[in-house]
Amino acid sequence: MFEKQVYTSRRQALVKAMGSESGILLFIGNAESPAQYRDNGYKWRQDSNWLYFWGIDEPLFAATIDLESGEETIWSTDFDVDDIIWMGPMPSVSEQAAGVGVSRTAPYGALDEYIAKARAAGRRIHFLPASRYYNAIKLSKLTGVPADDCFSAGKAGCPAASEAFVKAVIGLRLIKEEREIAAIDAACDLGYEMHTIARKGIRLGRIEQEIVGDMEAVTLANGWGVSFATILTQHGEIFHCHSHEMPVAPGKLMVIDAGAETNIHYASDFTRTYPTGGVFTQKQRDIYQTVFECNELAFSMARPGVEYRDCHLAVARHMLENLRDLDLVRGNIDDMVSEGIAGLFMPHGLGHNMGLDVHDMEDLGENLVGYDEGQTRSSQLGLGSLRMARKLQPGHVMTDEPGIYFIPALIESWKKDGSDKGFVNYAKLADYYDFGGIRLEDDLLVTEGGARRLGSKRLPIAPDDVESAMAND
Amino acid sequence: MFEKQVYTSRRQALVKAMGSESGILLFIGNAESPAQYRDNGYKWRQDSNWLYFWGIDEPLFAATIDLESGEETIWSTDFDVDDIIWMGPMPSVSEQAAGVGVSRTAPYGALDEYIAKARAAGRRIHFLPASRYYNAIKLSKLTGVPADDCFSAGKAGCPAASEAFVKAVIGLRLIKEEREIAAIDAACDLGYEMHTIARKGIRLGRIEQEIVGDMEAVTLANGWGVSFATILTQHGEIFHCHSHEMPVAPGKLMVIDAGAETNIHYASDFTRTYPTGGVFTQKQRDIYQTVFECNELAFSMARPGVEYRDCHLAVARHMLENLRDLDLVRGNIDDMVSEGIAGLFMPHGLGHNMGLDVHDMEDLGENLVGYDEGQTRSSQLGLGSLRMARKLQPGHVMTDEPGIYFIPALIESWKKDGSDKGFVNYAKLADYYDFGGIRLEDDLLVTEGGARRLGSKRLPIAPDDVESAMAND
Repeated sequence: MFEKQVYTSRRQALVKAMGSESGILLFIGNAESPAQYRDNGYKWRQDSNWLYFWGIDEPLFAATIDLESGEETIWSTDFDVDDIIWMGPMPSVSEQAAGVGVSRTAPYGALDEYIAKARAAGRRIHFLPASRYYNAIKLSKLTGVPADDCFSAGKAGCPAASEAFVKAVIGLRLIKEEREIAAIDAACDLGYEMHTIARKGIRLGRIEQEIVGDMEAVTLANGWGVSFATILTQHGEIFHCHSHEMPVAPGKLMVIDAGAETNIHYASDFTRTYPTGGVFTQKQRDIYQTVFECNELAFSMARPGVEYRDCHLAVARHMLENLRDLDLVRGNIDDMVSEGIAGLFMPHGLGHNMGLDVHDMEDLGENLVGYDEGQTRSSQLGLGSLRMARKLQPGHVMTDEPGIYFIPALIESWKKDGSDKGFVNYAKLADYYDFGGIRLEDDLLVTEGGARRLGSKRLPIAPDDVESAMAND
Repeated sequence: MFEKQVYTSRRQALVKAMGSESGILLFIGNAESPAQYRDNGYKWRQDSNWLYFWGIDEPLFAATIDLESGEETIWSTDFDVDDIIWMGPMPSVSEQAAGVGVSRTAPYGALDEYIAKARAAGRRIHFLPASRYYNAIKLSKLTGVPADDCFSAGKAGCPAASEAFVKAVIGLRLIKEEREIAAIDAACDLGYEMHTIARKGIRLGRIEQEIVGDMEAVTLANGWGVSFATILTQHGEIFHCHSHEMPVAPGKLMVIDAGAETNIHYASDFTRTYPTGGVFTQKQRDIYQTVFECNELAFSMARPGVEYRDCHLAVARHMLENLRDLDLVRGNIDDMVSEGIAGLFMPHGLGHNMGLDVHDMEDLGENLVGYDEGQTRSSQLGLGSLRMARKLQPGHVMTDEPGIYFIPALIESWKKDGSDKGFVNYAKLADYYDFGGIRLEDDLLVTEGGARRLGSKRLPIAPDDVESAMAND
């Protein structure tokens, strides 16, 4: 947690950003999330919007701001002796509220009547999309909106949420404060440690799951844990491969996409790809070199005023040029870029915002978070998955993660339906069906003059550096 | 997963146990559980009732059994190319269903109409208490019952669930099959490894969180992960202490309560308590010896025909005898037992069922799971928290976990309201306010002739054995 003034000034800025809107801002903090049943939960994690404005890292809190009177209230229930036996002594709700600059508190259960009265008086209840099902049920009970319509459904957020509220929150959280940048740097340093242990752990015959265990130990020993479920796979062409039962096999590429979350809940997110035997084949090196160049290209372009969407497109262009040199695609580069041919090889976006969440604020709706007014999201494969397209500003934090993959099911699908528009050399591509995939990811901060890679050290990434690091591990 | 016949025979036994009930049995498998937003989930974990009857370890499955026709249907939706890009190739729903002996499948979305038609025809829809909020929302949409009434609320389960269905499931899952016992033995062996690493990791000055990291690495390298959030604390008097930021300090007692879940999702659960410097003080040893004797006593009593509630009471009695020798309590032992004075020192129960869940089937309602018909749950502190009171039968698996704690807030509360009925020597007890707590837990299987401790090796537990293990670590 930060000092009290951080939270009071963030809330002042929020109310100011709400402009002429009236009514009540309603925040629902998280409950414990059951793994198997109510009392056996996953590791406690507070809602990120709650953490940003109210800081208190405990379950079953809510808060309201009355936009007319300015009155702020924190709703939660004090511990009794039974709670103390199980959970230990805990500061009172009013003590916790005072720590974030709030003087008015009331029991959690009293929120229902407060909201009911406000609704009866015709006042608008502004709420954010619920990122968890508990919060959707709670919002539904308070507002009368069906729970499904309160749950964040991804790209569009959710239909019942207050767009003014959502936009005001995004406006604040998108530009990171100095203290947040320091926190993200710390998360990146922890991510460096976890990736270094992983790289040192790649030995032929070892079970992937053992390396995952080593990585998570580092994050648990020094932080909250992993910022998302670790991807560690010799099938890099499967983006979210969470099966880790394979032994490390010779001649494969190992994609490790993983990050750490610190104790104050800021995230990092890095990807490296390693030759399992420590040395790239020429075929692997050709593709790796291209992905490496794309990663460097995006970084070199990132600066205030540039649209990150244009960085994605520049990466797509460079990738297609190199793939044409390898005779995997044939034809005019401009045409291939506009037809979205790069999507066959990189069906995801160049990057996403990062902060308290590894995909920052995704619960608020990908489009509102990642796109400026006037920017339209593409429907092309790849570009359509771009989560951060905005014109860059100092304080933006996002990932730079180009990749090239050979996905047999996707290639066959394009071949069948003609999505390649004749640009793809399927005969040559047939040699790559067992290649897997390569992704290389760093985390960037947009600065006044350009961009900076976050974290105090960069994981080895140039192909020669990777090979020499592995030789020395 | 087990072979197909396991699941078909379990379902046959379930239908038989439903007796003369009619209608439809409805099972809702889990969805991914969001940590921060829909697409950043906690580690995937299937619902345990689902795993037991339907085996398929993937999200967004449902199933129905028509009690009249016997027709079984699995409801889920096949992957498309987009899914394959992100998640990899996946067997079809019908292939997966065939693997657990089910020939009829339909898309997930079609379940709504199927249930609506059955309801319109006046048929009863039997469902189990929802252990997660997603499942409560889904059940609510299908059945029209408010989501809150579908969510498992702990001791009583939930009001809208089918008691006949709940009892039939408990009847089956309570008596472990041979293959399940083998699976729990494996989970216990993994728990042994994790506790051994923890004990070796206790060194003065080390941050608790680092030891937690080591323990979780073992579970992740060899299994699914931890079976519940690890408790590792020098404040053992706080039962669910999940803060691990303290350095290991001299002269303290370190309570480590932790277990592993295997890749097929069976749990273990062990507690040991260590002197942080490797040697007990005499004061610590006196209390430790009592807890150790209580652990042994419960094990020696456990056999078919004995109520586990009586093991709890025998432990309470022995504990009070020893505490009377230490002059912490004074008076007649029979009176103290019946007045529940042991609850001041052990405000929890002796043990709980264990299996696919570490608190097995707790989502189905603690009382139905842990108490036989005719057994009434006590309202006394301690005995009232007993989660497994039943008359023991071969195949029961439960924990044996006595403890003694000195909880200042609880002692002060008893002193104030006279709950101690004059048996407690508060003057002497004042010397124990900074003692902390001790708990010692093993996992037991009830056999034909008695009981067996699960796992192939027992963690050192006798005080001399603990000291010599720590001296050799």
